[in-house]
Amino acid sequence: MTQQPAHQAEIEALCRRAREASLRTADLSTATKDAWLERAAERLEAAKTRILAENARDVTAAERAGLAAPLVRRLVLEGDKWRDMVAGLRDVARLPDPVGEISELRVRPNGLRVGRMRIPLGVIAIIYESRPNVTVDAAALCVKAGNAVILRGGSEAIHSNIALADELRGAAAEVGVPEDAVGIFRTTDRTALQPLLAADRFVDLLIPRGGPALVRMVRQESSIPVIAHDEGVCHVFLDESADLEMARAIVRDSKIRQMAVCNGLETLLCHRKAARSLLPAVLKALHEEGVEIRGCAETREVFPDAVAADASDFGKEFLDRILAVHVVADLDEAIDHIERHGSDHTEVIVTESYRSAQAFLRRVNSSTVGVNCSTAFADGYRLGLGAEIGISTSRIHAYGPMGLEGLTTRKFVLYGEGQLRE
Amino acid sequence: MTQQPAHQAEIEALCRRAREASLRTADLSTATKDAWLERAAERLEAAKTRILAENARDVTAAERAGLAAPLVRRLVLEGDKWRDMVAGLRDVARLPDPVGEISELRVRPNGLRVGRMRIPLGVIAIIYESRPNVTVDAAALCVKAGNAVILRGGSEAIHSNIALADELRGAAAEVGVPEDAVGIFRTTDRTALQPLLAADRFVDLLIPRGGPALVRMVRQESSIPVIAHDEGVCHVFLDESADLEMARAIVRDSKIRQMAVCNGLETLLCHRKAARSLLPAVLKALHEEGVEIRGCAETREVFPDAVAADASDFGKEFLDRILAVHVVADLDEAIDHIERHGSDHTEVIVTESYRSAQAFLRRVNSSTVGVNCSTAFADGYRLGLGAEIGISTSRIHAYGPMGLEGLTTRKFVLYGEGQLRE
Repeated sequence: MTQQPAHQAEIEALCRRAREASLRTADLSTATKDAWLERAAERLEAAKTRILAENARDVTAAERAGLAAPLVRRLVLEGDKWRDMVAGLRDVARLPDPVGEISELRVRPNGLRVGRMRIPLGVIAIIYESRPNVTVDAAALCVKAGNAVILRGGSEAIHSNIALADELRGAAAEVGVPEDAVGIFRTTDRTALQPLLAADRFVDLLIPRGGPALVRMVRQESSIPVIAHDEGVCHVFLDESADLEMARAIVRDSKIRQMAVCNGLETLLCHRKAARSLLPAVLKALHEEGVEIRGCAETREVFPDAVAADASDFGKEFLDRILAVHVVADLDEAIDHIERHGSDHTEVIVTESYRSAQAFLRRVNSSTVGVNCSTAFADGYRLGLGAEIGISTSRIHAYGPMGLEGLTTRKFVLYGEGQLRE
Repeated sequence: MTQQPAHQAEIEALCRRAREASLRTADLSTATKDAWLERAAERLEAAKTRILAENARDVTAAERAGLAAPLVRRLVLEGDKWRDMVAGLRDVARLPDPVGEISELRVRPNGLRVGRMRIPLGVIAIIYESRPNVTVDAAALCVKAGNAVILRGGSEAIHSNIALADELRGAAAEVGVPEDAVGIFRTTDRTALQPLLAADRFVDLLIPRGGPALVRMVRQESSIPVIAHDEGVCHVFLDESADLEMARAIVRDSKIRQMAVCNGLETLLCHRKAARSLLPAVLKALHEEGVEIRGCAETREVFPDAVAADASDFGKEFLDRILAVHVVADLDEAIDHIERHGSDHTEVIVTESYRSAQAFLRRVNSSTVGVNCSTAFADGYRLGLGAEIGISTSRIHAYGPMGLEGLTTRKFVLYGEGQLRE
């Protein structure tokens, strides 16, 4: 007898039920899906005390286990996070439903009318860590886009996740959405991930949200398509013509508005001809706010408070009060540096030159490329998507901040009157 | 010492050179790419005698090896296939260049202008069998969309493929396109596929074009994203209200215009209330043209020339003069049958009912869904894409016939004036 991983039957059944549910969610009316979102918000509010008690169990256990303080903070659902999570459900209800939209409808020479209709992807599995609010955010977006979702959160948030998901499922049953449109892992057994990764008959897309190790493991072990949301090594390039005040403000906002976010600035590049005029003022402000500057030799010449960067500092995601700084010969060298060290997340040029701006926008093929703005705009809400399930740094299907549209695809629809090929 | 597959270093170098080339092809002007296509067409014409001699070596070897006649025919480059292949290059030159197109440019409340710019995917590897014209067709589309391509054709076509690719590379060198934008496997060693499947640092997308076994193997062995072009189990559903003449013509065109194509009809479904009025006439015409009818019990009642279908005939891709026929209770049962047995390729309803047409278009989520037309329109040219690299039956990235646009992605471009998040 071959040995089966624990929970194999349980997880397979979860996936199969999600597949069956997805056939029904694909054809739900917008009104029904929005009623579910509104009802889910109401139920969360009504169950708040109970859910926060479950959340407190997770937080206490994490503290006892000696989890680092920032990780414990991610677990906590109280306060702003609770309010944002519940408001998020109502926000998603107000977003336009992408399903059924027909675009590019054109008439062929033979009179056949050909269009593209937006449809759900089917079953989407989200593999995430720590933050229990992802349970609610991800389910809301996936189901609004007509999909069924399978949620596999971190073991440290298991009580919170189950409490939240059960309210979402309860709301579903009330309004005519299949309960199994929201599937949740009820085990924290690590081996239970394997049957999910193997469920290619039932699952259309895996979205791992976590570190590079998680993403690599998921890609390697599963033949299901993966859209990864992993690290961001974002660059700002100060061009020769950059305005000093703008450069200082953009670098500051990109670096220290929030530190532990994937759209935060990690490496600052500066045109050699502007190093002396720009870097001292730009870096001084940061340094005074406690940011460690790790500079190349030329950086340290113009800003002696910098410590020496070593090669591994370029391309590193610090997520902390550290900034790598490199002086480059020109725009070409900046683009080349980004190609070699970047992570295809977000890059910004600060410039007054039309030519440099156009070249940077055209030639840098990261998922978000900007001129004269903060890297912090790489965010689905800020870019006008209405919501965000994550930020993809791989070019297949979705690239950059990914909203409802990224959770759908398009089929061809043909309106004929008896047309034949022959 | 661990043993390396033969050709590991060679294939890795091929992939690395393609990656480097892709950084340059991404920024080529449309004029340069089109000059390459025109020059490649001229060079193929000039080298026709030599290329056809290489092709004859492949054909002779295949015949000696006892390859089946239809497979040998796929190898042959002479005649119409040669003409279409060369004309195809010039057709692709005339297609609009998708790269650089900006869409959905909108102004955010803070004045930031946010758009989506279409960009190449990077490096695309095509794994194909038999038909050497794919070498030219695939390279033309991939490079026109700004990508580098790696071509791994079947061993039986190796001399043809190398002769063709070398002209494409020669044309590239002449007009300023990197030669390595067109990379080709020069070995027929089967183990040489492994280093390609492992080259996730260099290759952005794998497109296997072949049977389900090839597709499954590629999906399982590689962590690179895969867009599969495999089988088509297409259905036509004759609704209660279908017009008899239209039904007969659409079924005939879908089934016997061409037999061995993925958009050919494999299973005919018929509404029970119309079985007696439609099936005898529709099936008689096919049967007289030599198509074997494999029917369910109800089909055989109204059309006694049918042989008994067994369960495995439903969902089978015959690619031959065989048609499975099933009588269903109603539209719901037809849709359910398609969900259980279909391959997400192409399904058509023949109906005069507005309600049935709308429901079928909305609820059947195959990649191409039509009303009152032949299944044979599931083809990039016929649907107006201008060209086709294949037909995807998986929902991630591209779904259905895939043209130039499917070989690209979109990045976010931000035009700012100093905007900050804070």
